[in-house]
Amino acid sequence: MPSSHKRRQRLVKKRSGKAGLPPGTPVHIGEKVSQYTKISVMDYDEAGCRETELTGIDECLIFKDRPTVTWINIEGVHDTAVLQKLGECYGIHPLTLEDIMNTDQRPKREDFGSYIYIVLSMLHPSGADNGAATEQVSLILGENFVFSFQEGIKGDAFDPVRERIRSGGGRIRKFGADYLAYSLIDSIVDNYFSVLEGFGERIEALEDELVENPTPATLGHLHAFKREMIFLRKSVWPLREVISGLQRGESPLIRQSTVIYLRDVYDHTIQVIDTIETFRDMLSGMLDIYLSGINNRMNSVMKTLTFIATIFMPLTFIAGIYGMNFSYMPELQWRWGYPVVLLGMAVAGALMVVYFRKKKWM
Amino acid sequence: MPSSHKRRQRLVKKRSGKAGLPPGTPVHIGEKVSQYTKISVMDYDEAGCRETELTGIDECLIFKDRPTVTWINIEGVHDTAVLQKLGECYGIHPLTLEDIMNTDQRPKREDFGSYIYIVLSMLHPSGADNGAATEQVSLILGENFVFSFQEGIKGDAFDPVRERIRSGGGRIRKFGADYLAYSLIDSIVDNYFSVLEGFGERIEALEDELVENPTPATLGHLHAFKREMIFLRKSVWPLREVISGLQRGESPLIRQSTVIYLRDVYDHTIQVIDTIETFRDMLSGMLDIYLSGINNRMNSVMKTLTFIATIFMPLTFIAGIYGMNFSYMPELQWRWGYPVVLLGMAVAGALMVVYFRKKKWM
Amino acid sequence: MPSSHKRRQRLVKKRSGKAGLPPGTPVHIGEKVSQYTKISVMDYDEAGCRETELTGIDECLIFKDRPTVTWINIEGVHDTAVLQKLGECYGIHPLTLEDIMNTDQRPKREDFGSYIYIVLSMLHPSGADNGAATEQVSLILGENFVFSFQEGIKGDAFDPVRERIRSGGGRIRKFGADYLAYSLIDSIVDNYFSVLEGFGERIEALEDELVENPTPATLGHLHAFKREMIFLRKSVWPLREVISGLQRGESPLIRQSTVIYLRDVYDHTIQVIDTIETFRDMLSGMLDIYLSGINNRMNSVMKTLTFIATIFMPLTFIAGIYGMNFSYMPELQWRWGYPVVLLGMAVAGALMVVYFRKKKWM
Amino acid sequence: MPSSHKRRQRLVKKRSGKAGLPPGTPVHIGEKVSQYTKISVMDYDEAGCRETELTGIDECLIFKDRPTVTWINIEGVHDTAVLQKLGECYGIHPLTLEDIMNTDQRPKREDFGSYIYIVLSMLHPSGADNGAATEQVSLILGENFVFSFQEGIKGDAFDPVRERIRSGGGRIRKFGADYLAYSLIDSIVDNYFSVLEGFGERIEALEDELVENPTPATLGHLHAFKREMIFLRKSVWPLREVISGLQRGESPLIRQSTVIYLRDVYDHTIQVIDTIETFRDMLSGMLDIYLSGINNRMNSVMKTLTFIATIFMPLTFIAGIYGMNFSYMPELQWRWGYPVVLLGMAVAGALMVVYFRKKKWM
Amino acid sequence: MPSSHKRRQRLVKKRSGKAGLPPGTPVHIGEKVSQYTKISVMDYDEAGCRETELTGIDECLIFKDRPTVTWINIEGVHDTAVLQKLGECYGIHPLTLEDIMNTDQRPKREDFGSYIYIVLSMLHPSGADNGAATEQVSLILGENFVFSFQEGIKGDAFDPVRERIRSGGGRIRKFGADYLAYSLIDSIVDNYFSVLEGFGERIEALEDELVENPTPATLGHLHAFKREMIFLRKSVWPLREVISGLQRGESPLIRQSTVIYLRDVYDHTIQVIDTIETFRDMLSGMLDIYLSGINNRMNSVMKTLTFIATIFMPLTFIAGIYGMNFSYMPELQWRWGYPVVLLGMAVAGALMVVYFRKKKWM
Repeated sequence: MPSSHKRRQRLVKKRSGKAGLPPGTPVHIGEKVSQYTKISVMDYDEAGCRETELTGIDECLIFKDRPTVTWINIEGVHDTAVLQKLGECYGIHPLTLEDIMNTDQRPKREDFGSYIYIVLSMLHPSGADNGAATEQVSLILGENFVFSFQEGIKGDAFDPVRERIRSGGGRIRKFGADYLAYSLIDSIVDNYFSVLEGFGERIEALEDELVENPTPATLGHLHAFKREMIFLRKSVWPLREVISGLQRGESPLIRQSTVIYLRDVYDHTIQVIDTIETFRDMLSGMLDIYLSGINNRMNSVMKTLTFIATIFMPLTFIAGIYGMNFSYMPELQWRWGYPVVLLGMAVAGALMVVYFRKKKWM
Repeated sequence: MPSSHKRRQRLVKKRSGKAGLPPGTPVHIGEKVSQYTKISVMDYDEAGCRETELTGIDECLIFKDRPTVTWINIEGVHDTAVLQKLGECYGIHPLTLEDIMNTDQRPKREDFGSYIYIVLSMLHPSGADNGAATEQVSLILGENFVFSFQEGIKGDAFDPVRERIRSGGGRIRKFGADYLAYSLIDSIVDNYFSVLEGFGERIEALEDELVENPTPATLGHLHAFKREMIFLRKSVWPLREVISGLQRGESPLIRQSTVIYLRDVYDHTIQVIDTIETFRDMLSGMLDIYLSGINNRMNSVMKTLTFIATIFMPLTFIAGIYGMNFSYMPELQWRWGYPVVLLGMAVAGALMVVYFRKKKWM
Repeated sequence: MPSSHKRRQRLVKKRSGKAGLPPGTPVHIGEKVSQYTKISVMDYDEAGCRETELTGIDECLIFKDRPTVTWINIEGVHDTAVLQKLGECYGIHPLTLEDIMNTDQRPKREDFGSYIYIVLSMLHPSGADNGAATEQVSLILGENFVFSFQEGIKGDAFDPVRERIRSGGGRIRKFGADYLAYSLIDSIVDNYFSVLEGFGERIEALEDELVENPTPATLGHLHAFKREMIFLRKSVWPLREVISGLQRGESPLIRQSTVIYLRDVYDHTIQVIDTIETFRDMLSGMLDIYLSGINNRMNSVMKTLTFIATIFMPLTFIAGIYGMNFSYMPELQWRWGYPVVLLGMAVAGALMVVYFRKKKWM
Repeated sequence: MPSSHKRRQRLVKKRSGKAGLPPGTPVHIGEKVSQYTKISVMDYDEAGCRETELTGIDECLIFKDRPTVTWINIEGVHDTAVLQKLGECYGIHPLTLEDIMNTDQRPKREDFGSYIYIVLSMLHPSGADNGAATEQVSLILGENFVFSFQEGIKGDAFDPVRERIRSGGGRIRKFGADYLAYSLIDSIVDNYFSVLEGFGERIEALEDELVENPTPATLGHLHAFKREMIFLRKSVWPLREVISGLQRGESPLIRQSTVIYLRDVYDHTIQVIDTIETFRDMLSGMLDIYLSGINNRMNSVMKTLTFIATIFMPLTFIAGIYGMNFSYMPELQWRWGYPVVLLGMAVAGALMVVYFRKKKWM
Repeated sequence: MPSSHKRRQRLVKKRSGKAGLPPGTPVHIGEKVSQYTKISVMDYDEAGCRETELTGIDECLIFKDRPTVTWINIEGVHDTAVLQKLGECYGIHPLTLEDIMNTDQRPKREDFGSYIYIVLSMLHPSGADNGAATEQVSLILGENFVFSFQEGIKGDAFDPVRERIRSGGGRIRKFGADYLAYSLIDSIVDNYFSVLEGFGERIEALEDELVENPTPATLGHLHAFKREMIFLRKSVWPLREVISGLQRGESPLIRQSTVIYLRDVYDHTIQVIDTIETFRDMLSGMLDIYLSGINNRMNSVMKTLTFIATIFMPLTFIAGIYGMNFSYMPELQWRWGYPVVLLGMAVAGALMVVYFRKKKWM
């Protein structure tokens, strides 16, 4: 169930440790997902591609002035020293470093002139319950480099991009750093689709369950889905603005040839939003169905009770009368008293049934 | 019932097969509706009209440089080879080809300079249940050609356009490719009206049923309609933006004389949206009626129960008292005990009825 | 009741007869309200006014090049021939003629350069039930003429305008065709006020009924009003845009001196919209009152039932005990057994009543 | 209670008397609040202030060409002759005169070049029930004069302004007519605050009542407040636009030095709107509290009923069995039959209680 | 519980004392939080920092023409004399002084040319109940000074800023007054996060309680939270506009280097708003859960009642029949009468249970 999963995920991440520090002080906010900081570099041009995994950040710096496109992917953002060194070398503003370490950012895009800073949420479809864990991904797009920072949850959506760089097919090796940044964003948005596919299947299953055999547990799942949608929505809506901003092509870092691809990923984002809104509408509709279902059943329960009470209360009363112990009750002595009373009861009961039928209560 | 129909239609189409491929790779997304790819060409100018059905895409290419208007209609978009050949010949961007094959697009319009790419949803009113199946239609409008791509569901909304081209009456043969594109869009929007007509009739029938003889099945239909409206709305709202974009006349591909017609089809789209919103409002109102109807009936059931219980419980209690076996119960020996008690019961019952009348519970 | 009235009015007018025809083909859509086409002409300038009722459209044409202002009012729009002749003579675009005949338009304004085409809904307050029938009115405003097309329902809102033209008082004879068009629009909007007055009175009566003596019929009326508001709203909202467009004064057909009057009628439209929204808010509030009223009554019914059951079930049980036929039940033989049990019952009952009082259930 | 008050106030004011008259005909719409027309004039400059109460409108005209600032306050707007004479003398457009007499205007601002016409609603906090009566106030701001028109309800919000003019302290005597107009608007908006203060206190009292001792009357008050808010909101929202329009400083009649004060009154208006929206949100929340309170009590009533029924129905049944008159019922003869059955009943009852405890129904 | 706290906080602050005074008259509106007026000054440049606590306002004036940055923090805004002296010396507009003393302002920003006036709400997380008290903070940013006015609640959010000025580390001593103003705003917004953290934790605790053990008290807390959110929202939404206005950089008082920091605090504000909206969505969802939970329990209670009644009413009726005292009831004499009837009852009861099972009511 997504609810239990989400409840573990805190509504508001602790920032208290940071209150009072001057702005631009990089302090890690959020759970420390991984212990280590893993740095992997892909450095490529049309001719070839070098791939290395680094142990220290110092080795990164040599890529700075090469004409090739350099992609440095850093997993684990809790290590202040690493970020500061990188920041100094590549001229990253302290506020950007601070934002990278605060893992509760909403998606945004900031243009610092010499680089564009982009924050996104990457979804991890988590096994059993199909709920989705969120990992903050920061991208820094410079003239000839892209840095990507992940919180460090295992696995990411970037493998297909890596594969394409290695193979050298397609456009990616021919185009610049902006196309690489686009490819990373595209693979993150594609990831949303597969998570939504999972949700879609489960919502349809829930819908069937709702119609065929609703239980209070069905309701619990329904509410858990609604909750999930609140969070999903919160992380996707600003995405739209982010990509639309990139696509407007105001920064010289983004070439005209890439804009057409960004328009494509923008369309995908709209589609993701559309799908989430459709899910929300459907879940609202399903809640209505559930509630009117309960009302219907309640109605039918009450009718049964009323039917039984209306039949047997008068009959029991009649039986009670002839159970009284008065000395002078002439009917009791009549030879046909008993059968006549039984008959009377049967007739009264039958009349009740007819009345109920007429009122359509049966 | 639309619900069963729609449940078969997947909420989110499978895209997983595509994840990881470079953008612009044409991969078919969605159910393969038809096995074959059917290509039909209409090539006309004011003087005459040639109509052919092609077996291979190569024959299409000969129409490229003719001064006549060429309309190539392709049913079945799963065949990558066909699309790629067409794309190369006519200079279609790979992203457009990809979009044509992904049959879960929302309506959109993209201007690629040398052509305008338009995605629409065509409705197929499906027989028995009046529900509507959706088929994605892509249009490519170039200088002197229009390509239309359908998923391949049998039948389309274009027959009247074909007829008009053949007959040569009216404006269509005199005007250019942009007027042809307008005509195709117009016939798709006209199609919405006939589907909405069907919905309107069924909603009115449902409304009558709701007032005269509501059952839980009525509620089921209500919810099915609401669900249908969610999907219909999702496919019509963006249409408005699409046509308003065309009408703004920024592309040289659309002549000023056609803009006035696009304004007309834009009005129709607004009317379709208006109608859908009215349906939604009415369905909400009908749900309220249903629920307050249930409440009213529940109320009336409870009143009956309370009435019966309030009459017979005290009477049964009195009967119970005189059914006790105490040795010394002087009333039991009185000559008039029995009739007096019966009378007392009748009076008590009558008082109860009066009380209920006063409280307006009967 | 408005509901029955409206149910007869179709949700979506049949357009199927038209599907497939080329755009600009004038085909009548909607019920044929009147059998005949009635043409009346008022031709006036400051000096005088000629009024004629015509039998054929040909006679209209003579007014074309006169310097006077000509108002041609046509009732009944099903006659294609009449419209086409008029269109040819005065240069009316085929799409306009088509729109005039399609009587399910939403209010709109279209500027064709040589004339402005305006569609409006005129309300007919219909006798007994105060519901309102809608009649589509099309206006064509040219340099020195105004054409008005009505569906042909008997009576219209234009009589005061006619009177003012005849009497020659006020501004109308001195001002041009644009002032005439304004006067017609103004009288249509004034008409809304009188219909809304009727609604206001009935809603207030319903509100009193709701508080004093609510019945399921009250609920039915409430829902009927809500339905009516949906339709009214649909026809008034676009009106705002229409008049605001006219008032912006972009067309040379509208003189600056008329703009100030259009601003006035624009304010009236806003007021009509405001009133409709207020009605909607009030009807929603009234539905809440009704539902909470039902809940309150249900609650009070249930309390009565529970009260009765709680008093008499234990007492009946006690009576049942002493009605058992065991041989050895010493209490039965006691001299004071009967009165003691009766007293016990009275005490138990009194305690129950006290308990209920304390819980505020009585 | 506000409800009763408001019900007397008509939803839609009668306009029927006016239908058909040419636009610009001043006809009084609304109740005739006062019989007389009271005209008071304040004419001042920095040096001094002359205050007169006039019997006829003719005396007003002498102020026209003086360099001093003239404020003419007219109570009672039903006298057409007075308005028309004033209009002719000061060049007021007939449409403005018409609007002044129609006392159902929504707040608006119209710039006629030589003067600005402003309509506002002034609230009168009405004694006992704290409900608010509305009085339409029209202001006409010219080069060196301000006219204010009131419907004639006794008392107004302008006394502080009069006092300040008389005393000659502060800025008012030094600044021009625009500052006077601002002062009048400001005192009207200040008036809203005191009415809202009254509402705030009563809503808080209602909230306490709701939590401590809710009755159906509480609900009635709640709905009456909601209704009041609908009307209050309707008259305040357009005010925002009115003042924002004045503040934009497009008219030469408003000096730059006054704009800063208008910005201040604009802020107050926003605060009034904010407060009304907060009230609406709170009233919605209170309705939810009331309804869930009813549900909770209903639940508790039902539990009691079920508890009693579940305990006593089986016990009564057992007693019924041993009340049967079969000849051969061996238990009846047993020496310990009676006590054993009593014990069995006690045990059964105790088990039921335990079961209910476990289900948390007690 | 927040509810009790908030109820003490008045919905609308008393303004009546002020009605009728000329605009720009500084009158204190709101509770007088502190008795004294405490004035503390920090005067610094890159070289050093002087900190003084003043007894009278006169000493402030000496800082006016120094080149250093002066921050004067004033706690307690009820002392008119102090404010007026300050206003005269530094050229503060009377309307600004008035706004400072009216402690019910909504957040706003006003540019007076020589200074910018900013009103904010500072939250004080109040101990036990985690509810938040609001304190109005006014900032005046001039060329080389910042004034901050607090109502006088003990403690504020500015301590970290003070610490940074004293220590001289970071940018604050090097940058100008605009950076100081930014730092103060930033620390107020940071404060929101810690209050929201507290809310988040309590909402999650409430959510757990709701699922595991809901009581009417849970509902009370839910409504109290909703109420709190209404007020929180009201004070945060305008903040967004305030900061976005500062960041647009139209005033020369704000240097370009500070704009980037304002953009950062703007992002934080958006995040605060986002979090509040998420809380609201969640609380709505929780209310739905509570209500459907009540419905479910009600349903289950009713089923139990119906089950018990349906089993025992018929059985009691049968027992009643054989408790009648007719002389001729042959069954009573049968040897196996009693066991046969008992068996019949058992069978009837079992059939009922089977029926209930089939209907899924058990």
